[in-house]
Amino acid sequence: MSLIVTGTIGIDTVVTPNGHAERILGGSCTYFAAAASLYGAVRLVAAVGDDFPGEHRAVFEKFPRIDLAGLETRAGSKTFAWGGKYMADMNTRETLFTELGVLAEAPPVVPAVFHDSAFVFLANTHPGVQMGMLEQLPRRRLAVADTMDLWINIARPELTALLERVDGLVLNYDEAELFTGKRNPVTAGRAILAMGPRFVVIKKGEHGALLVHRDGLAALPAYPTEQVIDPTGCGDTFAGGMMGALAGDEGWHAAGWRSGPLEDPGSYENIRRALVHGTVVASFNIEAFSLERLTTLSPEELTLRYQKYVAMTRL
Amino acid sequence: MSLIVTGTIGIDTVVTPNGHAERILGGSCTYFAAAASLYGAVRLVAAVGDDFPGEHRAVFEKFPRIDLAGLETRAGSKTFAWGGKYMADMNTRETLFTELGVLAEAPPVVPAVFHDSAFVFLANTHPGVQMGMLEQLPRRRLAVADTMDLWINIARPELTALLERVDGLVLNYDEAELFTGKRNPVTAGRAILAMGPRFVVIKKGEHGALLVHRDGLAALPAYPTEQVIDPTGCGDTFAGGMMGALAGDEGWHAAGWRSGPLEDPGSYENIRRALVHGTVVASFNIEAFSLERLTTLSPEELTLRYQKYVAMTRL
Repeated sequence: MSLIVTGTIGIDTVVTPNGHAERILGGSCTYFAAAASLYGAVRLVAAVGDDFPGEHRAVFEKFPRIDLAGLETRAGSKTFAWGGKYMADMNTRETLFTELGVLAEAPPVVPAVFHDSAFVFLANTHPGVQMGMLEQLPRRRLAVADTMDLWINIARPELTALLERVDGLVLNYDEAELFTGKRNPVTAGRAILAMGPRFVVIKKGEHGALLVHRDGLAALPAYPTEQVIDPTGCGDTFAGGMMGALAGDEGWHAAGWRSGPLEDPGSYENIRRALVHGTVVASFNIEAFSLERLTTLSPEELTLRYQKYVAMTRL
Repeated sequence: MSLIVTGTIGIDTVVTPNGHAERILGGSCTYFAAAASLYGAVRLVAAVGDDFPGEHRAVFEKFPRIDLAGLETRAGSKTFAWGGKYMADMNTRETLFTELGVLAEAPPVVPAVFHDSAFVFLANTHPGVQMGMLEQLPRRRLAVADTMDLWINIARPELTALLERVDGLVLNYDEAELFTGKRNPVTAGRAILAMGPRFVVIKKGEHGALLVHRDGLAALPAYPTEQVIDPTGCGDTFAGGMMGALAGDEGWHAAGWRSGPLEDPGSYENIRRALVHGTVVASFNIEAFSLERLTTLSPEELTLRYQKYVAMTRL
């Protein structure tokens, strides 16, 4: 089943209590696609400037299941750049700088060969742009969007309109409260369901995630780890693992859950199980800067940690 | 198997964003014993003053499996009283007042008929007092202590000495960092294990709990609920459910885990499974002030929620 992601490719500068890294490969699309490609093919739609370093482009070659037909390189434009600093608790961060570059221009176009995509992930960007992407994908079976505080604050009507058209929304704990005015995450999740989606995933970083689905609730702990280097991209790899597990054609990860395409990929049970894969993939991403850890991650390591997670939660 | 708890009985005044209650029954021992009694008999050792209201004493009668032979009523003394206010997020609270009363006097004595207790829970109090209790219980098979920031700050040597003698420690996330200087809870937990105990349970309130055991790690989400009235006593009911499930002679809760006494109650697998019971009992306690919810809780309700939790985490 074809999975597509639209979002950003960025050049990140990251400062954490455990070290810092300058002008490394980042972006929501990048992290998502790398994670999802562990499970199967993933189509990427994003734009970079002609300043995009060759060494970063080479990283994508390490993930051969990412289809780069939708990667647009714009002459005379600059690649999106972002700098962020994580506080001591690694749960909060401050933005040091943002250079929009291509993000301030017209969004990339979905190539015709991608129009039949069945699984759609709209990584974090302006909800108006997300809606434009969605409209180019008429054969979608499952569409999930990410969002952030910025769009809740400055583009609430567009976000509300988008919610009527997607199956699921992924956002952070504090953003769920900001969006709904409800502190309790279950209450906040239900308020979002009332706007249209079938499910909401509330991300809590090191505390895991909460699924609020029309057909049930689930709470998933994060995989406990001591190896915390850089949380950048963990939300995107979490979503990538989830969507990859739903769409991917790989059997090794399924552990009895599925052996072929899912009849109803957005069902409570399928989303809940897919979120475990997101949790496990994100737990690797946090262990290094940029895509370093995912680049070297083997299917065996992924399977082993998945099995450890299952054992840890089995009753 | 005999379970004993030592700790406080208090008269609480609680202010939360959802309401307030004055001079209600509280205390670590009270909450623990009520929760543990859902699983079997529990012996209580605590002191109150002669001002202890008859209506509060009557509450204990609603939990007939609490053995009150160790409840000491002191003529001329005052019952411990505490006032607290919860912030909007319900995760942090400030102490409004503390009237130590009997807590400033000699600790209660463990009655001779309780000396054979096998399961010991030392609810939160000065670690020197906890050690004194422990020494009166030579036939213990599993001893677990709770503690708090106050003792970490003013009685660290006594707490460190206690840790050499107990099997497990229960404490809050922030307290684990305060005690060890390690922000990462797994790292903090391992630092505490190095001081003696076989396991540490790090409580994260609405985000669940983390088990750091010599033989493995486990993360447990809290039961997601919208009904959040008063978090007071949730840590104690969590511990009460855990110890009750380990010690109790009731079969209905076991769901195939155990049908008789456990060979090694402190093993990784037994503690992990017992913590699920703690999680479920605490999720009821938060739904009302004082012991109101536990007073009316039926075994059927408890079993149903346990099964829901299991279904939510089954992979």
